[in-house]
Amino acid sequence: MITIALAQMEVIPGRPDLNAAAMLAMIDEARGRQADLVIFPEMAIPGYLLGDTWEQQAFLRDCEEYGRSIVAASHGICVIFGNVAVDWDKRGDDGRVRKYNACFVAQDGVLRGGDNFPYPFRIKTLHPNYREFDDTRHFFSLRKLAPEFDRRTEDLLQPVAVAIGGQTVKLGCILCEDGWSDDYGLKPAAILHANGADLIVNISSSPFTLGKNNKRNRVFSKQALETGRPLIYVNNVGLQDNGKTVYTFDGFSTVYDGGGRIIAYCPPFAPALHVIGLDLARRGENLPPLTVPDDRGIDTIYETLRYGIAKFLARTGIERVVVGISGGIDSALAAALYARVLGPDNVLLVNLPSVYNSATTKGLAEQLAKNLGCLYAVVPIQEAVDLTVRQLGGVDIVSMRDGSRTCLAVTPFMVENIQARDRSARVLAGLAAAFGGGFTCNANKSELTVGYATLYGDQAGFLAALADLWKHQVYAVGEYINTTVYGREVIPTAIFNIVPSAELSPEQAVDEGKGDPLIYPYHDYLFRAFMEWWNRATPEDILAWYAAGVLEARLGCAPGLVPRLFPNAAAFIADLEKWWRLYTGMAVAKRIQAPPVLAVSRRVYGFDHREAQNGPYFTAAYQKLKARLLELHWPRPGVPRHGG
Amino acid sequence: MITIALAQMEVIPGRPDLNAAAMLAMIDEARGRQADLVIFPEMAIPGYLLGDTWEQQAFLRDCEEYGRSIVAASHGICVIFGNVAVDWDKRGDDGRVRKYNACFVAQDGVLRGGDNFPYPFRIKTLHPNYREFDDTRHFFSLRKLAPEFDRRTEDLLQPVAVAIGGQTVKLGCILCEDGWSDDYGLKPAAILHANGADLIVNISSSPFTLGKNNKRNRVFSKQALETGRPLIYVNNVGLQDNGKTVYTFDGFSTVYDGGGRIIAYCPPFAPALHVIGLDLARRGENLPPLTVPDDRGIDTIYETLRYGIAKFLARTGIERVVVGISGGIDSALAAALYARVLGPDNVLLVNLPSVYNSATTKGLAEQLAKNLGCLYAVVPIQEAVDLTVRQLGGVDIVSMRDGSRTCLAVTPFMVENIQARDRSARVLAGLAAAFGGGFTCNANKSELTVGYATLYGDQAGFLAALADLWKHQVYAVGEYINTTVYGREVIPTAIFNIVPSAELSPEQAVDEGKGDPLIYPYHDYLFRAFMEWWNRATPEDILAWYAAGVLEARLGCAPGLVPRLFPNAAAFIADLEKWWRLYTGMAVAKRIQAPPVLAVSRRVYGFDHREAQNGPYFTAAYQKLKARLLELHWPRPGVPRHGG
Repeated sequence: MITIALAQMEVIPGRPDLNAAAMLAMIDEARGRQADLVIFPEMAIPGYLLGDTWEQQAFLRDCEEYGRSIVAASHGICVIFGNVAVDWDKRGDDGRVRKYNACFVAQDGVLRGGDNFPYPFRIKTLHPNYREFDDTRHFFSLRKLAPEFDRRTEDLLQPVAVAIGGQTVKLGCILCEDGWSDDYGLKPAAILHANGADLIVNISSSPFTLGKNNKRNRVFSKQALETGRPLIYVNNVGLQDNGKTVYTFDGFSTVYDGGGRIIAYCPPFAPALHVIGLDLARRGENLPPLTVPDDRGIDTIYETLRYGIAKFLARTGIERVVVGISGGIDSALAAALYARVLGPDNVLLVNLPSVYNSATTKGLAEQLAKNLGCLYAVVPIQEAVDLTVRQLGGVDIVSMRDGSRTCLAVTPFMVENIQARDRSARVLAGLAAAFGGGFTCNANKSELTVGYATLYGDQAGFLAALADLWKHQVYAVGEYINTTVYGREVIPTAIFNIVPSAELSPEQAVDEGKGDPLIYPYHDYLFRAFMEWWNRATPEDILAWYAAGVLEARLGCAPGLVPRLFPNAAAFIADLEKWWRLYTGMAVAKRIQAPPVLAVSRRVYGFDHREAQNGPYFTAAYQKLKARLLELHWPRPGVPRHGG
Repeated sequence: MITIALAQMEVIPGRPDLNAAAMLAMIDEARGRQADLVIFPEMAIPGYLLGDTWEQQAFLRDCEEYGRSIVAASHGICVIFGNVAVDWDKRGDDGRVRKYNACFVAQDGVLRGGDNFPYPFRIKTLHPNYREFDDTRHFFSLRKLAPEFDRRTEDLLQPVAVAIGGQTVKLGCILCEDGWSDDYGLKPAAILHANGADLIVNISSSPFTLGKNNKRNRVFSKQALETGRPLIYVNNVGLQDNGKTVYTFDGFSTVYDGGGRIIAYCPPFAPALHVIGLDLARRGENLPPLTVPDDRGIDTIYETLRYGIAKFLARTGIERVVVGISGGIDSALAAALYARVLGPDNVLLVNLPSVYNSATTKGLAEQLAKNLGCLYAVVPIQEAVDLTVRQLGGVDIVSMRDGSRTCLAVTPFMVENIQARDRSARVLAGLAAAFGGGFTCNANKSELTVGYATLYGDQAGFLAALADLWKHQVYAVGEYINTTVYGREVIPTAIFNIVPSAELSPEQAVDEGKGDPLIYPYHDYLFRAFMEWWNRATPEDILAWYAAGVLEARLGCAPGLVPRLFPNAAAFIADLEKWWRLYTGMAVAKRIQAPPVLAVSRRVYGFDHREAQNGPYFTAAYQKLKARLLELHWPRPGVPRHGG
């Protein structure tokens, strides 16, 4: 029987000083609780998402130094922790000093495991390089190291032997992606088992995305079952980002017994030191199996948003925020979330009406502010908008070549954007500075996908907390906030019922039922197929499914919706091309200048979704299929379709 | 003797249709010019910087289809070209269909090289994963493939044998990074030579950065000399981006003979089909050696900027631009560049004075417009700024919790930012829409480094064309424009001589010699050490060099500057920490929302410089050194330094 402490710490990225201090305290606590072994997450000292900070040698030396302080503190306890390991004598593929994403095993002030491996630590074998992950950029993997020793990677995957309570325990130490080996030729856990490991320890720094834990439990349970060895997964909590995309880390550290059953876990989104007694002789089956909560629901989305916003504000030192509220659902949800995190006295809600805003939405904005008990102000923008329109229309442009003079016309479409920019860049930015905080971006993922937001206008803000939620998810989280978080109607019911509208022109009058050009029950799902699917759907795929009559089933939207929305192929194609052009065209330019996005889904705009300003493209196969469909439905004039 | 055509084509990223059409035309031309062999660049069909477009299977099929059209066109000529190769039956590490960055050799309608390799094409061995490069994200390398066949990578690096003029020529085909093998354990060119290659062909898609060609000639010459085989390097021209960072491709395709001498090259930044006769028996020494122009000077920086701006505008469909001109050097340079590219009638220069702008700079702005012959307008912002200040100061904030009322104070610092946002988000954005184009961001790299620009203000624009130039480079390019490009004073001399200033407050009055807090002759070099160096300098390094008296030599700034600027260690440290805090703090948040940056240097903000909002950090070693230095120079009160 060994006593093991899972140290689900909050890792502060880029702060080895703070992380090492937290670890020393947890080691003391674990020792006090009679643990034989305490396990910290991957990259516990430096943090994981650090951009190119890895290129600072001073930072590397600092991490090494703090790492030594952890080793020194391992008297009477075995400490497993993640840190960067540097081989100052070797080079990475980039010519810089070689760095490993490493797992250290320390006991009684000494590093263990140097007897059967080139280094006295273990290094990550599989380096994720999809989505937001960048391991291959900075770290040298075991797969690259093996050929240098003329060895197979399999031969180098050796357990670390430590003495615990008089017996030798062989620890199979792997790091994060090493456990997600389904798509790789190499299976580190199975190899370590074959090489004698008694116990698999997976130290991770695994960002939260919706549904990931569910998959992880499936994959890791199977791994434990197949190896017949208990598997301990330790993940950190906290918030880390790569600039454009901001990730929460939920921890949810879990122990699987040798039969693949979950026998212990730490609750998500909170630091924990969880101590268990594991009988290795019984493969951990001394503990009863547990059921973990499902985390794919709206409650988890809410929890991620709340945790992410709170941590992001704390990190950036923002204690007060300004939220522009229109009376629509997106800004209402933002207001409710920020009020929950900061308290209503630290949230200034501002309604910014122009002549196009209805009494309905103005009233709803005020009602929302009342329900939340926030600070509230109304700042009309019409005077400034009129001034701008007048001034731009009156600009006297002179050609310095020939002295000729011209002026410019300001169209109604331009006035829409003038309003949006006036609200954000003039009023909200100014108010936020005076209020001593930041102003929020309330854009959702559907809007961000096709650039249905004005640059320097409603797309602006210090954080786009809702920009990884499709419109239907925004509604669902809003409802959850009312029913479950607050337990009363903080977001007025009418906000759920009015037509979504930007209210920037007479064509968007909510009281006449006019609003956004987006048909969310269809476009949310179409855009998800473009954007979130592992194999991205393109117009070619969409059109093929449309032609085959399987589109709704493929997209997952309501059956019967597509023919109701589009009377014929021409209308369907026009819609498809319009949004594809925006998604791959102007919206890319807008996203480049968008605020950081808080991650929820398995594919987030920003660093997780890399894109170039290459503009819309339609494949040859698409063009062919389109021609055939239009031909079918729109016979060429003078060429009757059926003979005669 | 074989006749070889170097097809230095312009590759349009994401447009297989256009690229294939251009290639077919060049194949015809090469055949017409009796070429035995025509060589296209890496990824000639899809383009290279495509973000995650590689995850669209429809796009992959499309590339394959256009690739087949090139193979079909290879009758009577051997065609080497780059394309994505897909193995639909295998998976990459990410579980998606497996993709290779491949080199195809086609002749008489058939792919060659399948006899001594698992595929009838060659795949890239070394995948760059530093700076802007993302190969490892999408493509499976030869290094990963070899273990699947239980072979060494060296064994799989086999030449492609083709029959030319009755003789067999063994082509050693490598791709881009394969030629930059100095930091790798594997040397593909040397291995191919050992495996019998008569000729090394390096097809590349290599973005321009200053000084790279110089290094490339050094590295590739050595490679040719060491293998004793001629080496043909074919690179594309054009513009490609990864969203935040925009790269020009200069081509500069070059042929090295077996003695390492350059015997042919295509002029940079222009498409070319360059045909040479190469005597393989004489290792290419039948041609006389040439000297290539040095491309590390200001002329090259100018050319990159001009080419990059022209291509970016063409790509995004922007035909007219608005440039806000302050009378300072950055906007003057932007105006001169855009006027050169688009013609003065398509460039609207706008001066946007507030009460803080001097008659001096207003006059210089007008003089600049006159010299360039552009369209010109003056749009004063004071009325709108006053309205905003009045309106913000008068906002009646009510607490919906207790009914109490407050209002906010607008400080002079806030008014600075209000002016900047008024200019960009209100006036320039509106004018650009009315003018039918975009407005430019004129920020330079020194400003971007420390966030010395206002978000939604002077940091805004569709492209930050100068944001990879340090302030001293901005001046140098400005001078080059006058002396060499225009051959007359288009940028008024006084603009070079006034103090750089934002003119947003009385503290920045140029006529009183007041201006930016940045001391460019020092900070340009300090920031370069933070940002551009391969091993990033940090305060720890800077302070150590300062303490050792070698700082100026290390940074490359003027000797004697540092003690002149900073009377003692405390002053030096205060300055260092101030800028480091900004660089790693607020400036990161601003850069996340910055426009795309046009690349010039070997390290560019954006995708090439990955960063997180982790905030400033000072290592333990820095803290120790700082304490020691302050102790030395500032003896503790009551503790006299020298006895007594």
